Amino acid sequence: MAEVRNKQVVLRDYVVGFPKESDMNTVEGRITLKVPEGSNDVLLKNLYLSCDPYMRILMSKIDHEGIGSYTPGSPLTGLGVSKVKESGHPDYKKGDLVWGMTKWEEFSLVPATQIHFKIEHTDVPLSYYTGILGMPGMTAYAGFFEVGSPKKGENVFISAASGAVGQLVGQFAKLTGSYVVDLLKNKLGFDGAFNYKEESDLDATLKRYFPEGIDIYFENVGGKTLDAVLLNMRFHGRIPVCGMISQYNLTQPEGVTNLANLIFKQIRMEGFTVVKLYHLYSKFLEFVLPHIREGKVVYVEDIVEGLENGPAALVGLYTGRNVGKQVVVVARD
Amino acid sequence: MAEVRNKQVVLRDYVVGFPKESDMNTVEGRITLKVPEGSNDVLLKNLYLSCDPYMRILMSKIDHEGIGSYTPGSPLTGLGVSKVKESGHPDYKKGDLVWGMTKWEEFSLVPATQIHFKIEHTDVPLSYYTGILGMPGMTAYAGFFEVGSPKKGENVFISAASGAVGQLVGQFAKLTGSYVVDLLKNKLGFDGAFNYKEESDLDATLKRYFPEGIDIYFENVGGKTLDAVLLNMRFHGRIPVCGMISQYNLTQPEGVTNLANLIFKQIRMEGFTVVKLYHLYSKFLEFVLPHIREGKVVYVEDIVEGLENGPAALVGLYTGRNVGKQVVVVARD
Repeated sequence: MAEVRNKQVVLRDYVVGFPKESDMNTVEGRITLKVPEGSNDVLLKNLYLSCDPYMRILMSKIDHEGIGSYTPGSPLTGLGVSKVKESGHPDYKKGDLVWGMTKWEEFSLVPATQIHFKIEHTDVPLSYYTGILGMPGMTAYAGFFEVGSPKKGENVFISAASGAVGQLVGQFAKLTGSYVVDLLKNKLGFDGAFNYKEESDLDATLKRYFPEGIDIYFENVGGKTLDAVLLNMRFHGRIPVCGMISQYNLTQPEGVTNLANLIFKQIRMEGFTVVKLYHLYSKFLEFVLPHIREGKVVYVEDIVEGLENGPAALVGLYTGRNVGKQVVVVARD
Repeated sequence: MAEVRNKQVVLRDYVVGFPKESDMNTVEGRITLKVPEGSNDVLLKNLYLSCDPYMRILMSKIDHEGIGSYTPGSPLTGLGVSKVKESGHPDYKKGDLVWGMTKWEEFSLVPATQIHFKIEHTDVPLSYYTGILGMPGMTAYAGFFEVGSPKKGENVFISAASGAVGQLVGQFAKLTGSYVVDLLKNKLGFDGAFNYKEESDLDATLKRYFPEGIDIYFENVGGKTLDAVLLNMRFHGRIPVCGMISQYNLTQPEGVTNLANLIFKQIRMEGFTVVKLYHLYSKFLEFVLPHIREGKVVYVEDIVEGLENGPAALVGLYTGRNVGKQVVVVARD
């Protein structure tokens, strides 16, 4: 079978500091649209690619204990929604829609183990499986409910609330009757909002919004934001640590100086990754799909068209350019 | 009834930076050795006073959210073992031995609610109720078993292991079959030990002692030690945060820069104070008393004689002068 063109976004070299568009190249690869004889792999046509903050970590040379790094000259890997073109694996067949780990290219041959889930519900936008119905949705759900242990009427603060995860945590918190304030650009019916880049004294701002303190801080940012939040936590507060996007581009991370508040206020701070929580996925879908269909939970996406626009979309995450979940459309079906 | 002399250690003024002996004065007060008519208070003769790291926090002017501060010109407060001289409260009678919050003076009139427990077992040294059988013992027990959730064969690292709490955590961890390394001066049968003040590269030292990483870090120190430990934690590690003694004297605490490891390795970091865990005290005594009597758990004390030597003993905690639990003897019975 003849080879076809396979446009790819490859990492040029390991990145130090903030990533730039020029750290990636769009190149023309070639691929044979066939699963090799005897292979269990699955050939995917990639439709929607997900831009996620953790990808910056993989652009560094340092191996963060098993998280690994990208390989310069090779396509980025990331989550995406894909259509099965051909399958060597009995669980998948041509035409199936799936989401999971794929590569930043038009077509990818992947081991079946990289596919996270087959997509069963298509009455919602397919791109949602990179966001609200994918890893970020599960992250918000598991991080808030499992790690955050919310109780009705608590005070919830969310950083990076214009992002893929933060916007959902806020909405989930509202559903549980919490008072919610976030650092964000687009207001989603929360009780307050401000942009931390415009606040010179975050401690004072937090005291204004949370005169009684914060019960749950859903941490996406790290650094100075965390330091100010620690001063404003309540006794027995919880800090699910989902990400620290403000720190990923720094060669020397900002020092956090107020950790003794963990003791004074008996705070639990817990890092988590959604990878260990995918067993909750079907429970999560049962929870979230009705809310989406009834319009009780909305999801803001920032969609760019074309793989070649992927690098700009990805680096925009780290300057906060995106409003909502950043998605790259490779093909619509 | 005539007044008698009541020697007291009073705080001269709020402290900034490392405390000095001269931040406290030994003064001669007066007290009437009688519970006032109609009062429920208890008159105590103080025997052993406990020097504890948290006391530095109370010497600062800043109110750490309800923890409060000492009052300049008034005696320090702290934990101690006392004998009841006279009682206005039905739960206590003359001659009872008790431990709880008292003042740095010879005799104290205290509300009965400040007494934590009546002392039932006197076949062990009475001073132990400021240490292994008191707040530090409960702290080590609850912090290690309840917050640390140890599993057999795990790798445990303890900072400030020559102190009142750290020496016990190490011994409790050995009882559970852990591999234990500590920062300490006196070795108590652990698997390794080093003095962090003599190690220029703590990260490298930790990698040498823990080539496979640390499962439980019992945090007493904070700052640079915590930063190095974060680089060496294993997946799903736990950090019970008991204290951060290295930070209490700093006007600007050291910044902790490696917190993103909480995410990479899904680490739980949890501040706790023993105050919320005293319901476990009788269970704790059942556990620890047989071990003490059989010599399976030993306890190192650093005892100074005389209330007037209390200030030197207390400030010695912050330079690491003490070897073992620091106790001040006011009277032996």
